[in-house]
Amino acid sequence: MDNFTFYSPTYFVFGKGTENEAGHYVKRFGGTRVLLHYGGGSVIRSGLLDRVKASLEKEGLFWAELGGVQPNPRSGLVYKGIELCRKENIDFILAVGGGSTIDSSKAISIGTPYQGDFWDFYAGKAEAKTSLPVASVLTIAAAGSEGSDGSVITQENGMYKRGYGSELIRPVFAIMNPELTMTLPPYQTASGCTDIMAHVFERYFTNTRNVEITDRLCEGILKTIIKELPKVLENPNDYEARANIMWAGTLAHNDVCGVGREQDWASHNLEHELSALYDCAHGAGLAVMFPAWMTYVMRHDVNRFAQFAVRVWGCEMNFENPEETAKEGIARTRAFFHSIGMPTSFAELGAKEEDIPKLLETLQIEGRTEGFFMKLGPKECEAIYHLACRE
Amino acid sequence: MDNFTFYSPTYFVFGKGTENEAGHYVKRFGGTRVLLHYGGGSVIRSGLLDRVKASLEKEGLFWAELGGVQPNPRSGLVYKGIELCRKENIDFILAVGGGSTIDSSKAISIGTPYQGDFWDFYAGKAEAKTSLPVASVLTIAAAGSEGSDGSVITQENGMYKRGYGSELIRPVFAIMNPELTMTLPPYQTASGCTDIMAHVFERYFTNTRNVEITDRLCEGILKTIIKELPKVLENPNDYEARANIMWAGTLAHNDVCGVGREQDWASHNLEHELSALYDCAHGAGLAVMFPAWMTYVMRHDVNRFAQFAVRVWGCEMNFENPEETAKEGIARTRAFFHSIGMPTSFAELGAKEEDIPKLLETLQIEGRTEGFFMKLGPKECEAIYHLACRE
Repeated sequence: MDNFTFYSPTYFVFGKGTENEAGHYVKRFGGTRVLLHYGGGSVIRSGLLDRVKASLEKEGLFWAELGGVQPNPRSGLVYKGIELCRKENIDFILAVGGGSTIDSSKAISIGTPYQGDFWDFYAGKAEAKTSLPVASVLTIAAAGSEGSDGSVITQENGMYKRGYGSELIRPVFAIMNPELTMTLPPYQTASGCTDIMAHVFERYFTNTRNVEITDRLCEGILKTIIKELPKVLENPNDYEARANIMWAGTLAHNDVCGVGREQDWASHNLEHELSALYDCAHGAGLAVMFPAWMTYVMRHDVNRFAQFAVRVWGCEMNFENPEETAKEGIARTRAFFHSIGMPTSFAELGAKEEDIPKLLETLQIEGRTEGFFMKLGPKECEAIYHLACRE
Repeated sequence: MDNFTFYSPTYFVFGKGTENEAGHYVKRFGGTRVLLHYGGGSVIRSGLLDRVKASLEKEGLFWAELGGVQPNPRSGLVYKGIELCRKENIDFILAVGGGSTIDSSKAISIGTPYQGDFWDFYAGKAEAKTSLPVASVLTIAAAGSEGSDGSVITQENGMYKRGYGSELIRPVFAIMNPELTMTLPPYQTASGCTDIMAHVFERYFTNTRNVEITDRLCEGILKTIIKELPKVLENPNDYEARANIMWAGTLAHNDVCGVGREQDWASHNLEHELSALYDCAHGAGLAVMFPAWMTYVMRHDVNRFAQFAVRVWGCEMNFENPEETAKEGIARTRAFFHSIGMPTSFAELGAKEEDIPKLLETLQIEGRTEGFFMKLGPKECEAIYHLACRE
């Protein structure tokens, strides 16, 4: 196990009706002038935004509003948010929505007190030194942004999708009511769960030896999604299944199951180019990229893939030929994604094989590598994109 | 899943050599005048205390010392610590040791600024309103006190062992170097691991339905201990196994695997009377009490015990007779405790069946119940103590 530090100070408020406590917690964590940041119609139509506003009003808090966050959140709205925060002397940002809204809030949070262009952080040109506190009322189990120190934004000038991480943008609290996820369409629910599984995959496939405790946690999260998601697709109002998925989504990405081990993250970066170019759901892109990545890297550590097959998917170990077991685990992963309505090839996603040179260009892979489980140069990334074109 | 809040803001610093960063972290978390609190000879003999002092000195920090913490930490030393903290204007308490030292530090931390007797908190007569920050350099994987909000102290006046919990005493940081646990005698290592398993058992056996994610985390922690502990007993210097156990010990008790579900805690309370009366290791007492408790309550939910047997111990499910599977899981638990050198009966522990009335008296069980999985009145507690007398 590698040396590590682990720090997850977010205050999680989980369960039915908890959105009505938003104002209470904003106040408790020092907010007085709040930016309410959200996406589109659903939080308005469902009455959620009104309930959150009522709870702010009850505590006598001022708020300004900025809606319009899109999936794969854009730089343009971040600039608008920064301007609004400065104009209104905002001291607290409350995201009402999913990962996109939270990520956009995080960008605004470090961009507001910064003299330069907030994109400097995402382009790797500057480190954030200060921020406004961010919190969220979560509406989809997926990105894990409610408990993570990361944020991903798409720069509209060039459609580059880039991430930034800092303790400064880890949410101070997260309100998580599984009921709020009941109205999600099946495709979004499944796409969110794919993202959760992908966050675990990125940590699970590692070269670090002897990390039994984090292996077991990873497997537990995966098995939970595999068991609970079909229930939710069958009955969207299954509160218990929604609740298990929601807590699993947070633990998949606050790094409790990723500490002390090398992580990979190649598939996420390969996917980012897909969702930047085609504006597809991140989870859907991951469902396409992961089976391809697994197939390409499997021989690097057959035993780890066999462990994955046996422990996560309940495959029987083929002791005479572990590679068969490893392959079975990958086939089960792909079949599961299909069964939940996810695409698993470029064609199903609406991506085109002839765009691969374009994807490699925006990935900016020349002269460097992606991932750690296997380091992937330009040729390897290209091969994986081609594998992802196969059914 | 029940509504819950989860808050685990402790900063964990994990790995080789991390004790040398103690001073750095004390300073970072605002300490200037430190009480170094520890137990006996081992932290001195091993040179650990000197390394910690050197790191405090490097940061220019003042410190006072108070050694002498005993297993099952006593009220007497807490009173001494409070006096010393007041005299020396201490603003930070650094525990160098295991759960007993950390628990003693926590008691001093809330006792120092309190006008009354610190025992008021443990006797349920007062709530702490303020505290000195506490942190630890951990030397045994066991109690999980390094990341928990709880503390257990034995009142010497009557030998009552009582617990208190508050966010105010959750450690601000925990330094965890698995190397520091390599010199522990096998009995203490095994006793610590029994405590870790017991913390999971208290959460695992619940009446709350549909808590798959926390079930899976619990099972992962238990499987880790079951796999890693025998390696350590075989080779005390197995760093990787020590590391897996140490991180598992924290996760077993910071409540990440216990949220959203009713917990039990009867066995812990029944055990406290044993270690108060006989001054035995807490883990050893738990190894005696848990198989007895499991045997007594198993029929309350046979399926849950069958799940425990299948998922944790790898037993094959007897579909015609689930109770057989449930019993097998309990038998495997008892056999495991035996295999790691733990007692599993009163006689092996050095406890006496004729003391049961005395245990029930200090438990103060008249007119109330223990536990939640099954509520246990005086008769049930008595029956479980008698069961624990059997081999």
